[in-house]
Amino acid sequence: MSQYDPIIVQEVAPRDGLQIERTWVPTEEKVRLIDAFTDLGFSRIEVTSFVSRKAVPALRDAAEVFARIKRDPRLIYVALVPNARGADDALAAGADELNLVMSASQTHNLANMRMTGEASFAGFEAIAAKPRGKVLLNGSVATSFGCPFEGAQPEERVLDLVRKYLDLGVDGVSLADTTGMANPRQVRALVDKALKLVTPDRLTLHFHNTRGLGLANVLAAYEAGARRFDSALGGLGGCPFAPGATGNICTEDLVNMCHEMGIDTGLDLETLIKLSRTLPPLLGHDVAGQVMKAGRNCDLHASPVALAS
Amino acid sequence: MSQYDPIIVQEVAPRDGLQIERTWVPTEEKVRLIDAFTDLGFSRIEVTSFVSRKAVPALRDAAEVFARIKRDPRLIYVALVPNARGADDALAAGADELNLVMSASQTHNLANMRMTGEASFAGFEAIAAKPRGKVLLNGSVATSFGCPFEGAQPEERVLDLVRKYLDLGVDGVSLADTTGMANPRQVRALVDKALKLVTPDRLTLHFHNTRGLGLANVLAAYEAGARRFDSALGGLGGCPFAPGATGNICTEDLVNMCHEMGIDTGLDLETLIKLSRTLPPLLGHDVAGQVMKAGRNCDLHASPVALAS
Repeated sequence: MSQYDPIIVQEVAPRDGLQIERTWVPTEEKVRLIDAFTDLGFSRIEVTSFVSRKAVPALRDAAEVFARIKRDPRLIYVALVPNARGADDALAAGADELNLVMSASQTHNLANMRMTGEASFAGFEAIAAKPRGKVLLNGSVATSFGCPFEGAQPEERVLDLVRKYLDLGVDGVSLADTTGMANPRQVRALVDKALKLVTPDRLTLHFHNTRGLGLANVLAAYEAGARRFDSALGGLGGCPFAPGATGNICTEDLVNMCHEMGIDTGLDLETLIKLSRTLPPLLGHDVAGQVMKAGRNCDLHASPVALAS
Repeated sequence: MSQYDPIIVQEVAPRDGLQIERTWVPTEEKVRLIDAFTDLGFSRIEVTSFVSRKAVPALRDAAEVFARIKRDPRLIYVALVPNARGADDALAAGADELNLVMSASQTHNLANMRMTGEASFAGFEAIAAKPRGKVLLNGSVATSFGCPFEGAQPEERVLDLVRKYLDLGVDGVSLADTTGMANPRQVRALVDKALKLVTPDRLTLHFHNTRGLGLANVLAAYEAGARRFDSALGGLGGCPFAPGATGNICTEDLVNMCHEMGIDTGLDLETLIKLSRTLPPLLGHDVAGQVMKAGRNCDLHASPVALAS
């Protein structure tokens, strides 16, 4: 791998970003966003999740969203699913990939999924055994870098879940920093070990910027060999335990960092910024993205001195 | 140098943070903040600047602030000065260090200092020739990583200014990313070259988080051997060209990253967070810091499941 290999940016705003929003985002607005992501050419878009409507009312239109978005056959439209019922719904809706999720932390799994990690995994075994045609499976390990209830998670516990997912036959694995507790030293160490189990094209890093470390963690992961990253337009998302804290790492801020470093993403930053600027009026609040406010480095300003002369 | 050398965090909120605030911060509140930084034990605190009152009305009480703060003789209380008149005022006020500042970009120097870089430097020569007892000099190169009017600055221009400052006899040099245009690759390259001219104990990196890259740039600079960093409590500051964009890198977010990585700062994170939480009511707006919202990693939450059972 070269020092300046391209990276793959996977857009998760429609799912991880919108799930926490209190304002209802109409189905047609979700479709508009996802269609714009299709036009931008993201290789993967996490469209929605098939979970309890009561738990996540913001995504209660999951099936309708899948039915209405346009589909580029080169792209992979992902649905997050926590259990066999969600998988059935996602398959019925036409998802290209099921993103299975469970937590490294037992307490977090109980709180988030209302079942033990063992029960989550038994559900995934049932899903993996279903006939599903060409539909892909991705296995996500939430709280890989720390749990808001338990604190740090043993590396070996996380790696063991990666091994279990691989034994199940998943196509890819994600290490998720669900509430933004990772640090670059820890990221480097875990990515280094994970890449002994799985190749870079099959490993996704999913960072949150809850404590401002999102892009520093991307940098550390990239240097350790990771090449696939989840991010959300505008830095949407959030943390139920930290009102006002930022959510997922911001797509356009990530793309800006990469392009400034000479790392290709295949995405057009200017279009991303324009799209991100449609979010505050849609959601009724400011969003966390910085480049949408500051512009690109190349968006130069007129000198006030020159203007005055 | 070890991989986990401690770093020196220098607090600049009273100057770089407050200078852009529209709400008048009363002198006694400035003094309260600076005294709290003294109690926290920052090795350097940038107290204020001695500039045109018309240009920066928020700091028009510079001399009074210096007169009223408590002084720990182990700490260095810094005043930013752009010219010989400012230096006279700062010396009269009792500053321990004069932070001279000019821009790598000629256009930025004209816009910000209302004179050419040559004129700025001639002023610094006059300052360096003045009798000033034990008062230290630091030379800052603004727009070292890019100018909002001109764009990228040639590395050689920045390094040439570092050499000129050193020839002048300064005690330290700062490379400033004035409007947050730096990227980690560029930072690594420039720090690497700067450390051939000056030792790590005499080099400060001053990053802004305007495009969300602040801590990633710290990481890159640290790995290249930099050990001194400016930051502002709460991430105060801002960018006149980017309404809503963040300002300086945030002190408590930086300290959190370092401590999580096992890098000592000598600062107490819990006290920093408490102090940062006094900023929004003081300023009348939210601030950019994340850890003040999310808490430390070790501030665990009760599981909602355990609570319900």
